[in-house]
Amino acid sequence: MNRIYFDNAATTALDKDVLDAMMPYMTTQFGNPSSIYSYGRETKLAIEKARKSVAALLHAHPSEIFFTSGGTESNNTAILSAIRDLGCKHIISSPIEHHAVLHTVEHYTHAGLVTSSTVKLKADGHVDLEDLEQQLANAKERCLVSLMHANNEIGNLLPIKAVGELCEKYHAIFHSDCVQTVGHYPIDLSRLHVHFISGAGHKFHGPKGVGILYINQDVKIKPFIFGGGQERNMRAGTENLYGIVGFAKALENAMANYDTDSVGILSVKKYMIEQLRQHVPDVAFNGDQEGSCLYTVLNVSFPKTEMSEMLLFNLDMNGICVSGGSACSSGANQGSHVIQALNNDPDRVAVRFSFCKHNTKEEVDAVIAKVKELV
Amino acid sequence: MNRIYFDNAATTALDKDVLDAMMPYMTTQFGNPSSIYSYGRETKLAIEKARKSVAALLHAHPSEIFFTSGGTESNNTAILSAIRDLGCKHIISSPIEHHAVLHTVEHYTHAGLVTSSTVKLKADGHVDLEDLEQQLANAKERCLVSLMHANNEIGNLLPIKAVGELCEKYHAIFHSDCVQTVGHYPIDLSRLHVHFISGAGHKFHGPKGVGILYINQDVKIKPFIFGGGQERNMRAGTENLYGIVGFAKALENAMANYDTDSVGILSVKKYMIEQLRQHVPDVAFNGDQEGSCLYTVLNVSFPKTEMSEMLLFNLDMNGICVSGGSACSSGANQGSHVIQALNNDPDRVAVRFSFCKHNTKEEVDAVIAKVKELV
Ligand SMILES: Cc1ncc(COP(=O)(O)O)c(C=O)c1O
Ligand SMILES: Cc1ncc(COP(=O)(O)O)c(C=O)c1O
Repeated sequence: MNRIYFDNAATTALDKDVLDAMMPYMTTQFGNPSSIYSYGRETKLAIEKARKSVAALLHAHPSEIFFTSGGTESNNTAILSAIRDLGCKHIISSPIEHHAVLHTVEHYTHAGLVTSSTVKLKADGHVDLEDLEQQLANAKERCLVSLMHANNEIGNLLPIKAVGELCEKYHAIFHSDCVQTVGHYPIDLSRLHVHFISGAGHKFHGPKGVGILYINQDVKIKPFIFGGGQERNMRAGTENLYGIVGFAKALENAMANYDTDSVGILSVKKYMIEQLRQHVPDVAFNGDQEGSCLYTVLNVSFPKTEMSEMLLFNLDMNGICVSGGSACSSGANQGSHVIQALNNDPDRVAVRFSFCKHNTKEEVDAVIAKVKELV
Repeated sequence: MNRIYFDNAATTALDKDVLDAMMPYMTTQFGNPSSIYSYGRETKLAIEKARKSVAALLHAHPSEIFFTSGGTESNNTAILSAIRDLGCKHIISSPIEHHAVLHTVEHYTHAGLVTSSTVKLKADGHVDLEDLEQQLANAKERCLVSLMHANNEIGNLLPIKAVGELCEKYHAIFHSDCVQTVGHYPIDLSRLHVHFISGAGHKFHGPKGVGILYINQDVKIKPFIFGGGQERNMRAGTENLYGIVGFAKALENAMANYDTDSVGILSVKKYMIEQLRQHVPDVAFNGDQEGSCLYTVLNVSFPKTEMSEMLLFNLDMNGICVSGGSACSSGANQGSHVIQALNNDPDRVAVRFSFCKHNTKEEVDAVIAKVKELV
């Protein structure tokens, strides 16, 4: 059975040439980047080259890029340091943030370190900017705004420039979880008013276990993880050398091919929308699928039937990988908090299909044929 | 020029068969371990198999092993949660702990969350157990004792069983940084009274960017990094799948070959001591080198001369990798805080030679020849 992998928002396959770029550092070039001898300096150089490359691709300064163990650690670092080091006493996020933001905010709220609130969402899942502005205007203390750039379940894109400008107007700290857009979207940090963004290598054909945190140079924080002087004293721990090299190579690939890949993936997504409309009665879509939405994600709403409730399971039986909620909560077998926040319709079943450059219309045809059979 | 790598306490080469074990997960088996479809379950299985294997090798229960991004994160997690979740109000550590412990303790002490003190050291660098007991007996509040199993600069071994028993007697929480001993020492957690131990893959021919935290099952803590439900809700973030698989494979190798490797490495170390005594006038050793000391580490004290001050640099010029302090502080070009704590003799220069299974007596001969020339 040929596998069809339509779950690229959960994780992606490592590019062959990314693995090739990592390989020297997994074999002969293993020196500790913090060592002073030349053999360590070679690996240090590889890390600094990676940092420069990542910075250039995001239009940031190398000193603003910090390598972490992943998107989750990056989100945790930004939120903790906004509270601890930047004087934020209130956090504004949204009900559809990733758990790496939501649970972190919940923890510090329960611990009594901050208060928190969420912005109103419009029916299509977009953040209500008027509500955001009102909350910022009414805030008595400094706020952290943590709003994701693209939602991992429905793909909705935040108007990140406009949100940044609002945050600037009200002197708020702005963190954006860009885990779904770093490597899938031309981010120009020189034009955004954002203090922190998070990214994760494994979402764009890079390695797992490595991410970045962009920290705007105007912002001075303490580390989240204390220890050695790595990452210019900002993130201690022997560096994930191959991960860092792989992250940079994957981002280089992604941005070099962005124009063609994004067009190709969007055409797969559009074709899937069209085919679903044609072949599945009463199908609908969650979020702003045909508006301001990332081209990689398609969240489909099926009428609930005995069959459609078994859809994920039956697709799996047929070698088709898709998901209900986000991967990291799917084990828990709860419904998706994102879909619940958007429209808590007990008579619908939501399924996320998410695409990458390797997916084809033929795969869509095969999936549609199965879906027709299964709903 | 052939490189001689005598800096294995900083980091080690990845074993070829460890890389082989990781490779499937860097190519075809890339599914997100948290996904519910079978393709994700396969990688989940690989992680749980790794956890079981690591647990068995350390004589722990699989539910007590948590994978992290490295030794530093593990140390940070143990210390924060002892303070935050276990009611520890005072931390007892030693002046020769790794910075991943020292700087973490400093941070929480400065933040006013705990008080802290250090135990007295004996001249040979060992912890004065009487002083430890006195401090525990005099403490008015619950203590965290954080003492490393083997020191990364001098190799001194803590009597970990005795310290655990003291901690039990005084109801203290005991964390031991075992980053230098996991993979180099037969740790039997079923016989120790320890609540937390930390380990790091890259110290025993496993991958960088992955570590473990053992959390004794009697201890209930909250996560350090919040987000998805990975690691049984204890460490959020998409798992470093290949890192975890590699960690387990490297530990399996290390323990399977422990008897022969440890004997072989010890004979290299002993040979080096002997050769140094024979060929270098006024040589001495820091720590308890011929007593209770890890076989991998040899810290040599040379009389200070213009030449010996340049020793690290000149060895490097000759392709010989050794270190002054620990790798992660060497960039800062400060003296070693460990050597300073032991004996602050301005007329001596300390150099750490650290060995692995690949090192030979022929390499020692070549290094001795250079050292003779250079001091
Ligand atoms: C004793 C000790 N603890 C902690 C660490 C930190 O481990 P890592 O750098 O892998 O996070 C090291 C090595 O760097 C070490 O030798
Ligand atoms: C939007 C978003 N934020 C954060 C994360 C967490 O990233 P990671 O699991 O790599 O830590 C993910 C994916 O898991 C994500 O989709």
